[in-house]
Parts: sequence; structure tokens; C-alpha cells
Amino acid sequence: MKMKLAVLAASIALPFAAGSALAADKPQFRCQPGETYYMNVMVSGIEYWQPVFEMFKQAAEQLGCKAEYSGTPEYDVTKQLTSFEQILPRQPKGILLHPMNADPFIEPIQRAHDAGIPVVTFAADSPNSARVAYVTSDNRREGAAAADAIAKAMGGKGEYAVLENPGQGNHDLRVTSFIERMKEAHPDMKLVGRSVTNQDANKAYQSVLSLAQANPNLGAVFMPEATSAIGAAQAAVELNKGIKVMTVDVNEKVLDLIKAGDMFGAINPNQGVQGYMGFMALFLAAHPELIDPMNDYKRTGANPFALPVIDNGFAIVTRDNADDFRWPAYKARREKAAQN
Amino acid sequence: MKMKLAVLAASIALPFAAGSALAADKPQFRCQPGETYYMNVMVSGIEYWQPVFEMFKQAAEQLGCKAEYSGTPEYDVTKQLTSFEQILPRQPKGILLHPMNADPFIEPIQRAHDAGIPVVTFAADSPNSARVAYVTSDNRREGAAAADAIAKAMGGKGEYAVLENPGQGNHDLRVTSFIERMKEAHPDMKLVGRSVTNQDANKAYQSVLSLAQANPNLGAVFMPEATSAIGAAQAAVELNKGIKVMTVDVNEKVLDLIKAGDMFGAINPNQGVQGYMGFMALFLAAHPELIDPMNDYKRTGANPFALPVIDNGFAIVTRDNADDFRWPAYKARREKAAQN
Repeated sequence: MKMKLAVLAASIALPFAAGSALAADKPQFRCQPGETYYMNVMVSGIEYWQPVFEMFKQAAEQLGCKAEYSGTPEYDVTKQLTSFEQILPRQPKGILLHPMNADPFIEPIQRAHDAGIPVVTFAADSPNSARVAYVTSDNRREGAAAADAIAKAMGGKGEYAVLENPGQGNHDLRVTSFIERMKEAHPDMKLVGRSVTNQDANKAYQSVLSLAQANPNLGAVFMPEATSAIGAAQAAVELNKGIKVMTVDVNEKVLDLIKAGDMFGAINPNQGVQGYMGFMALFLAAHPELIDPMNDYKRTGANPFALPVIDNGFAIVTRDNADDFRWPAYKARREKAAQN
Repeated sequence: MKMKLAVLAASIALPFAAGSALAADKPQFRCQPGETYYMNVMVSGIEYWQPVFEMFKQAAEQLGCKAEYSGTPEYDVTKQLTSFEQILPRQPKGILLHPMNADPFIEPIQRAHDAGIPVVTFAADSPNSARVAYVTSDNRREGAAAADAIAKAMGGKGEYAVLENPGQGNHDLRVTSFIERMKEAHPDMKLVGRSVTNQDANKAYQSVLSLAQANPNLGAVFMPEATSAIGAAQAAVELNKGIKVMTVDVNEKVLDLIKAGDMFGAINPNQGVQGYMGFMALFLAAHPELIDPMNDYKRTGANPFALPVIDNGFAIVTRDNADDFRWPAYKARREKAAQN
């Protein structure tokens, strides 16, 4: 216990060691008591948000701030808007928002901004709004990394197809980048088919069967979302010709398929960095006194911490590391860490 | 003085209010005494670095860390490599690096990494190195914003030309994005000429004279760097036909020309956010115990704070705000703030 007390004393003394006699006049890199930051999402029950909020909360605690999770359990933009608007009267210090649709949030984000509440978007943006920053993974890099992984596994040579969900921006970017990367970096990888499956597992299942029939040497199929991936993997298993199914985003079912060797792999955004850096961007925007850059922010009144994008990166999930992305195991690890 | 003491007391009490009885066991969002972070550049005497280092240093002070400026005064990659390598034995906690060339830094960055010293790149990258993050402005956004500014000033209609410096990646991206944005968003803006001026003010001067002779309705010229811009502005002044010269990056000469109305404007990266977020990325990478994301970082040994890119944004500098980007005035403001 003696050592612990010594460490404690050192951590109390630090502000003085670093600062001057007038340290209290300088802005502190820490929350004032009661500062509360919210995260707001739609379909609040799905697993994806949990590892994001876990690190959002951890960053908040490290800076002496409070973190709250909010949103609507439904896939319904009106209900998410309501849940967002209900935060405002609670005087939040900032809101990390995943807007279900971009434009319906322009006005509510403006209202938050006018009330002095900064909003940072994550994993989906409202680019024409007054949000101060956007934290996300780069769909182009995701598509390119998926292409590299598939090409490497096939020795740089073979035939592949893609399943698509045209019209959803992030999905389109992933597919386009996958194909472009193949053309540029892996010229012996040949695109033999494209099929629109619109996030429908059954359509994906049928498509892969048809594509394999038309192209007996089909070696891989890429799709930008997990629902089609599950149907595609089932077809690949039934065909039993070693077709590699590669997708983006994971869930327990996808992880089970990857672990069993029935799906080749998936790209997964770095949710922890997304939540942690989402909090940091929000904390900084709520504490503009911490920065004084050489630009026109004093003239325009803009938040000096505004930044276009923080790319949180992603991981390539394969059979070797699939277990590292399971929420129940991670949750147990985090709860254990909290007890120690 | 009473109030100051009260604030001081509150700031001491904070760690306890936020944490548990075992707070001292938890990682602190603060430097241990003596932690020193370096910034390393080439041509260390130029103005551009100063506002970057100013906010790098400020972020360091806020977290109780030390900041050091280093580099070579010359435009010489061998000398910058030497200056980088001289930092390593001093046991830095991290290095924010502007690599003059990408590949010569791969091995030294690896050596730093192997010694447990994270490296973050800024404003130029070494993408195949072991750097943990990259802080920069996005050349594509810069080019697009320049196009929007010119098109707006010309009422969306007119003729323009570009001066180029082919082969330097960031310059090429700015020009390509400028032209693409014009095509997509401003269809009545017509590209009438392209001229290679290779950062030569005299070539730029001659080129603008020739372009204007061949195209009597030439309304604007864009170039991706300041040296050509100075020559182009001189030609535009002599022609006296209201040709708008738009560039990227500022210096005192460019600011004088803009202020005098002899140059239309410039894009300037947000140096302060670059330095501040550069420090934050470095501090976090040097304190990986602060984050525990749900991914395979424990298995791979990768730094859990690695992130592909932080986009620090930029400002559009015109006659109205040019004075906000002058280093001498900013320096005086900062010195005054330090005294208070």
C-alpha cells in the first residue's frame, strides 16, 4: 500500500511540476465535474456499437468526464431524431452521433451547435451539417485491403466475382475500390461476374451458385456487407470448390463461419479507436480554449478544433484471429479489468 | 486571489471525484516526469514549421510533457536522416516527423519502432514504414476547395488554366482534384490551358503571359505551390485584366500579394491542428495502456493506437483574412499569452 500512496502523491503533484505558479489559470486537459458526453445511434441493441461505446467511455473516465449511451432500438430515422433531440435539454457537453441518414440531421445538429453543443459523427456522416469532426474507417482502403488479402491467398492469379448493393455509398465505394485495386496491383486476377444482391442472403446464395456454374474456375467472391456474405458462404460450402468468400463487417455468425473455415475473411473497422478518438475529438471541440492555431478561427467564430476526418483504421479478420473480435469474450475481459 | 485558490483546489480534487479508491493503479492521461517528445523536419528555419511546433508544444505542456524542436536547416535528406538518428539515443518518448523523402526513412523509423519509440508523420508520409499514424491535410479536398472558391468568385462561368509541377505527388493531386471538381460542380468553367512550370517563378510568369495571349478571356490560374504563384501574380498584375491567381501554401510574400489584391487567394493547411493532433497521436501511441480495443492487437503486437490518417483540414486565405496567417503577429500573440 505504501507504493500506491507514493504513486498517488506523484499524480497529484504533476500539475504543479509541469505548470507555473499560475497553473490554475491555464486551461486544464480534463473535464469539470459533471461534464457529460453522449453517444447516439439507431438500432441501439446491435453488437457493433458496444465496443465503440466501451472505449468512448474509457476515454471519458480517463479525463474525469461522464459518458452516456443513447439512441433508438429501431431502424427508424424519425425515432433516432427524437432520441437525439431528447439529449439536448440535458445540457450535454458533446454528442458522438451515428446519423442513420445524413440530411435529416442537418437541422438538429445546427440546433445543438447553436446551443454550444459540439457534434462529432462516426461511421456515417452528415457532411453538410455543422458537425465539427467525423471519425470513420476509409471505405476505399477497406476495399483495397480486401483485394490484397484475396489476391495473396490465391497466389495473385485467378477469377473472382463481386456481389453488390448499389446506391448505398459506403457499399459502392468498397466494391469499386476492390475492383480497382485488383486491376492495379493484381493484374492476373480476373473479374468474371457482378451480381446485385441488395443485402439479401438468399439472393446472394443463388447468385454464387449461378456465378460458379457460369465460371467453373471461380476462386473468390467479395461483397461489401455481412448479410449477403452469409448466403454466399452457404453456397460456397455446398459447391465445395474452395471458393473464398470475403466481406466487410463481422457479427457472431460471420465469425463462426470464418472460424469454421466456411468463409475466408472479413474487414472489420477498428471500433475501439473509433470510440476513443470520437471521444477525444468531442472533448477537444468542447474545450476550444485548449488550442490557439494560427488561422482565422477568431474572425469566423469556427471551432478551432474542427477537423474533416479521423480515419480509425480496420483489421483483416481471418480464421487465425477471428476469436479476437467476439463481443462476449471482450466484454468479459473488460469487466474483469474494471474489477481489478 | 481567493477565487484562484478555489479553482486550484478543484483541479486537485478532480482525479478522486472521477476515479475510484484505486485510481492510482489506472493509467493516467498525463506524462510521467521527463517524458520528451521531438518534432523533426528539414529546412528547419522556414516559417511553415513554427505554427505547427507552437501547438505541438502547447499540447505537450497541457499533458505535463516536454517538447523539443529538431532537424536540419538544409534541404538535404542525408542531413535530415542524421538529425533524426541523433534523437534516438536521447530516449525520446516519441517523434513527430516530416520525412523529406518517404523511403529513406523506412529503416530509421523501424529502428525507432524497435527501440519502443513511436513515430508519427505529418504533412508528408513514409507510407511503407512502421510509423503509427499520419497527420496531414487532404490534397484532394484542397484542390476541390480552391476550385469552388475560384468558381464562386467568377459567378460559376469562365475560362481558367493550371500551372503544374508533374511528379510531386501532393502537387499532382491538387491539380487533378481542382480540374475534376470544376468538371463535376462547375460545368461552365472551361479549362483552356495547362503549363508545366516546375516551381519556377520566372517560368510561371512567362506561362501566364502566353496563356493570356492565347486565351483573351482567361479569368483564373491555379497552381499547387507558392513559388509559381508569385511569378503568376506578377504577370496577372502586368496584364491588368483581373486574372485571379489561386495557389496552395502561404508565406509572407504570398500574404502581401493577397492583401494588396494582386493575388486572389491561397489554401493553407491548418498547421495548429496538425501540431496539436500530431502530439496527441504521438502521446497516445506512447501510452498504449490507455486503450484496449476489441481487435487482434494483443496477438499481433501492433500499437493499438495506430491509425491511418488524421486530416487536419485547411483554410481558404483571401484578402479578408490574410492577416490572420502572419507568423510575426501570431508569434507576438502567443508570447503575450505565455506571459499572462
